[in-house]
Amino acid sequence: MSKSEECMLLMDEREKTTFSLEEMTHLLDGGKYKTDLRQSIEKVILSDPRMKPEDISCMSPQQQHNHGVKRMIYFYTDLAKKMSWDFTDSRCPELEFLPRTVGMATSLMLHASAFIPSVAQLGTKEQVAKWYTLGKEYFILGCYAQTELGHGTNLRELETTATFDQKRQEFVLHSPKLTSMKWWPGELGKGANHALVMAQLIIQGKSYGMHAFLVQIRDLTSHRPMPGVTVGSIGSLMSMGGSDNGYLSFKSVRIPKANMLARYAEVSADGTYIKKGDTKLMHASMVNLRVLMTKGEAVLGLEKACTIAARYSCVRRQGSLQPSKPEIQVIEYVTQQHKIISQIATAYAMHFTIQHVQAIYNQFLQDLDKGKVGNLTELHFVTAGVKASMTEQSVEGIETVRRACGGHGFAHSSGLPALLQRAIPSCTYEGDNTVMYLFCARHLLRCAQKVFMGQPLEGSVKYLSAEIQNKCRANKKEDFINPNILLACLQHKAQAMLLETATYMQYIASKGMNQMDVWNISSVQLVNVVKAHMLQYIFSTFLDFINETYCSPPIRDVLLKLCALYGIYNINNNATNLLKDGYLNGEQCTLMERVEVDLLQDLRKNVVGLVDSFDFRDEILNSCLGAYDGNVYERLFENAKNSPMNKDEVHEETYKYLKPHLHKGRDILKKMSKL
Amino acid sequence: MSKSEECMLLMDEREKTTFSLEEMTHLLDGGKYKTDLRQSIEKVILSDPRMKPEDISCMSPQQQHNHGVKRMIYFYTDLAKKMSWDFTDSRCPELEFLPRTVGMATSLMLHASAFIPSVAQLGTKEQVAKWYTLGKEYFILGCYAQTELGHGTNLRELETTATFDQKRQEFVLHSPKLTSMKWWPGELGKGANHALVMAQLIIQGKSYGMHAFLVQIRDLTSHRPMPGVTVGSIGSLMSMGGSDNGYLSFKSVRIPKANMLARYAEVSADGTYIKKGDTKLMHASMVNLRVLMTKGEAVLGLEKACTIAARYSCVRRQGSLQPSKPEIQVIEYVTQQHKIISQIATAYAMHFTIQHVQAIYNQFLQDLDKGKVGNLTELHFVTAGVKASMTEQSVEGIETVRRACGGHGFAHSSGLPALLQRAIPSCTYEGDNTVMYLFCARHLLRCAQKVFMGQPLEGSVKYLSAEIQNKCRANKKEDFINPNILLACLQHKAQAMLLETATYMQYIASKGMNQMDVWNISSVQLVNVVKAHMLQYIFSTFLDFINETYCSPPIRDVLLKLCALYGIYNINNNATNLLKDGYLNGEQCTLMERVEVDLLQDLRKNVVGLVDSFDFRDEILNSCLGAYDGNVYERLFENAKNSPMNKDEVHEETYKYLKPHLHKGRDILKKMSKL
Repeated sequence: MSKSEECMLLMDEREKTTFSLEEMTHLLDGGKYKTDLRQSIEKVILSDPRMKPEDISCMSPQQQHNHGVKRMIYFYTDLAKKMSWDFTDSRCPELEFLPRTVGMATSLMLHASAFIPSVAQLGTKEQVAKWYTLGKEYFILGCYAQTELGHGTNLRELETTATFDQKRQEFVLHSPKLTSMKWWPGELGKGANHALVMAQLIIQGKSYGMHAFLVQIRDLTSHRPMPGVTVGSIGSLMSMGGSDNGYLSFKSVRIPKANMLARYAEVSADGTYIKKGDTKLMHASMVNLRVLMTKGEAVLGLEKACTIAARYSCVRRQGSLQPSKPEIQVIEYVTQQHKIISQIATAYAMHFTIQHVQAIYNQFLQDLDKGKVGNLTELHFVTAGVKASMTEQSVEGIETVRRACGGHGFAHSSGLPALLQRAIPSCTYEGDNTVMYLFCARHLLRCAQKVFMGQPLEGSVKYLSAEIQNKCRANKKEDFINPNILLACLQHKAQAMLLETATYMQYIASKGMNQMDVWNISSVQLVNVVKAHMLQYIFSTFLDFINETYCSPPIRDVLLKLCALYGIYNINNNATNLLKDGYLNGEQCTLMERVEVDLLQDLRKNVVGLVDSFDFRDEILNSCLGAYDGNVYERLFENAKNSPMNKDEVHEETYKYLKPHLHKGRDILKKMSKL
Repeated sequence: MSKSEECMLLMDEREKTTFSLEEMTHLLDGGKYKTDLRQSIEKVILSDPRMKPEDISCMSPQQQHNHGVKRMIYFYTDLAKKMSWDFTDSRCPELEFLPRTVGMATSLMLHASAFIPSVAQLGTKEQVAKWYTLGKEYFILGCYAQTELGHGTNLRELETTATFDQKRQEFVLHSPKLTSMKWWPGELGKGANHALVMAQLIIQGKSYGMHAFLVQIRDLTSHRPMPGVTVGSIGSLMSMGGSDNGYLSFKSVRIPKANMLARYAEVSADGTYIKKGDTKLMHASMVNLRVLMTKGEAVLGLEKACTIAARYSCVRRQGSLQPSKPEIQVIEYVTQQHKIISQIATAYAMHFTIQHVQAIYNQFLQDLDKGKVGNLTELHFVTAGVKASMTEQSVEGIETVRRACGGHGFAHSSGLPALLQRAIPSCTYEGDNTVMYLFCARHLLRCAQKVFMGQPLEGSVKYLSAEIQNKCRANKKEDFINPNILLACLQHKAQAMLLETATYMQYIASKGMNQMDVWNISSVQLVNVVKAHMLQYIFSTFLDFINETYCSPPIRDVLLKLCALYGIYNINNNATNLLKDGYLNGEQCTLMERVEVDLLQDLRKNVVGLVDSFDFRDEILNSCLGAYDGNVYERLFENAKNSPMNKDEVHEETYKYLKPHLHKGRDILKKMSKL
């Protein structure tokens, strides 16, 4: 490709960067050795022609699925094996960089990230020895079957039953109603031959709640459903990527007694139910999936989208601020800076926070290996809140920067639609965000009770028990770039909202309203409380990282500005609760609006450096707008020319409907020209 | 289908409705005769088997396009002709209900709604007689080619040239650079054989700006590109619906002089440029497209989404507020009410407002027929603001209620993904929303100047010149259901924000900052000013409608509550600017949060009645979740079973990649069982 004017513009932008890209990339990856590891993985995967993704945007969902399976079965059973990467082990060092390189929502991913770890988590040693090995080698293909057609989040109400038949020492799996049909499991529709089925355990007419059962659902030779099994695809979904979601129901399907996963509970031959070990740990593997997914779909998605939009905004010219002057780069417009740079700040804040959360989880696992069970409540609270807050911010961010790319942001060749479509479901799966927020709210309300009783708090909620400040003490523009001032604002907001809501709930309860109604009519506020709490959590984690990490002054400077921008952006977005109790006054709000613009204009020179630091190779971005060289228009045209939609000059399939009318037109025009 | 438990729940909901559905439907349609007209159109279209849409979600973009052309060519050239519906005439009474019945983003729509009206608008009588007739009968298929690969909103910078060749009395169309390639026009990619090309008119080396030229781009017999013409599809886009967007460039393509559309300007035989008539009217037909699209994609989209989500929320049971009680309808949760009912209120507010705007436009046209040119500035201002504000609110609303449907909201069979995907582009096309907001901001700043000079304002901005109120006088919960109190809040907010921003801009300009920088650093605030102005415009238009229309007391009651909810929802969303200057105090904000919950709980009983009143037939909603009878789960399962993805029990195309591994697994398992 030629060195177009656009390429020159990006080269000029790179000249402006004030910090070392290499240093920033190492910080983002978590150290130089991690950057090296990542780059070596990327090299292996991206240089393998069989891993090259085709343009799935022109395919039907079925074709997308075929393409995904072909690519990923090669990856897991051949390439990864050759490289000795074991992705079924959550401690595999390469796993961290896998979503970045091959994408998250890929075929067969859930076999490795949900089915296998669940077997490992819930099975006895013998069960794991058998099934884990079969699964790891892709000799069986499994899915995790929990959600039902009529039941999502509320697991206790799942209707599928597994009834113990003592005489035959078997369990009988059964779906009593249409609503009890398993619905959604990934890999189930057309691929899986085994399912880990969550079902109500019933022994002699008594229910013992949810347990996990391994059920063979398809014949291993013919791939047809086993007797009594109904299975199929649930049809096409909004998100692309060839996922294979399915439905599954049972008509008295028998499995051997040995197929109940029995690490935490088992049924003896005589039908006695025996509890073993701490069932609280049962769901720890789900925490990992939640964090992995938040990072892979939400945070990485926003980073990629920012990379694309920032580079494009520097090469796109449109309009001018001064008449008769040539058109300017659209990044010069403050409205564009507000869209792009605020989201880059969000991406950085979330990046370092999710890395911190991953470290907490890894610490938890290491402690567990030593027999020490860490603070599971805090782990669930933090991961649920982070998941809900980050997926929401990420989807909003991706869509914001996508829209900032104008019409070209709609083209699949921009790479942006795929990022949006992959991020959107993350607000729902692995725990609907509203449910996650309300789960966190219960914890925060318990914290509020402790605050009222003067008890101290620890961990991520410690600030809530600090003495409440009445007024923000900042009064100059410079004050509002001070991260401690901003942290105090964000913490005050969450604290004040929580205590106000908790006080009101106590008040109406004291007036005789029942607890359930009190909870219900406060729930919208409670969701907002958790959102405010999470913003301060992300901000303070980012700030802690900057303060606790050695970095050169230019890096520290730009990170502090990003951190300040993230804080101010969110305060300015909605300062209602800071004004309500007089913590901020009107002049302070106005000052903050101006500081925000100052920060945007200051960070503008680093806009390309900041996204270059994410170090996404062109093959990963897969974007005509966001490629490293900035050669946007040539790429767009090349891509369009090569689109399957241009394979034939005349689309006979379409033209045949138009032809009779157009030939009439031809004849009329001919006659006209003869007149 | 059976009368499931879910059906019974919806029947119970309908019992609760407090008002006459028929009366509400007539109000929404604009009178009983319009309801009759709409229903008769729907009957004709929906009962025609050739108009039945297939499940396009399982198709590739090419297949979607083929399907769309097949369906719509039949519609326009056969069915509509039989019924004497002329959709190329913007005054055709049936046109109003077309988007509702066949969908907006349909193949060939832009030929009728952009190409034909532009020819009619820009051509001389002779030109219209020739081309309009050919187009109307689909004897030629045209597209409107304006946007270029490197140029969007800023029309003056378009690079395509049309150079007058006096000797041959022709124009030579040419694309001097890659960035000047026409990019985006709908119907262009594979279908159109004529294009209305916007190009720089050049006579003897001098440029006369943008003019419209009719160019034949494909041969009428072979459908192949004409000599010198490069044309093709720009590839797949985020939105579904089989649109056919294309690229087009010219290498010295000659057209007769008569093909310059010459109603407003022409070139004489000797090369003299002659201006004729009022060119301001040139873009009036684009105003119509903007309004039509806002209604068709944004407002109708939100209404459909609300219908689906409201019905589903009444039949979906999940969790319970009291332990040991059966699961409750999710609509009982206030968080769910907040998502669904606030959006129903938004849909109603936007519905009556866009109807009002359409009436303004129609009045403008009627005046024009009588030779009177109405207030074009106000028309552009109102339609640009309404377009930006409503498309944005609509996309947010559709996504909010889609997420409120949990996992099932991702399935194409819910009907929700298609609504979202069709609404999202509306924020960009027909004028990017940020550009629209800033266009309106320029007008509002001129209004602010008048306010500073004590001059009165008229029309939609009249309230800005009213005396500024210092404090909101409400102090009881009931006060905040009073729409006049809420209108005063919304107007104060917009007025205060505008005057504060304008004052600041004057101040920094007086300190020596150049006008362009003043504008640029204020632009984020200016966008917010316009958003605030538009919220009060929509609220006040809705309120005026209620006050000026005869309706029965139960209808009036529910409409006033919807209006109040729309106001409170938006005030509570962000009260920053009402608190900043002390117009509201903290207690008032807290009261409003409580009033919002009261209103939600009050309107909850009418939730199904309110969406039933939109009167969308099942064939139009095309949703398993939102069908009238509420039989959600049977429909979902039926739909999945019939999905093309379940055509074959074993997907050979996918299975072939898995087979070698799974057969190994089979052999290992066999060996194991023998041990």
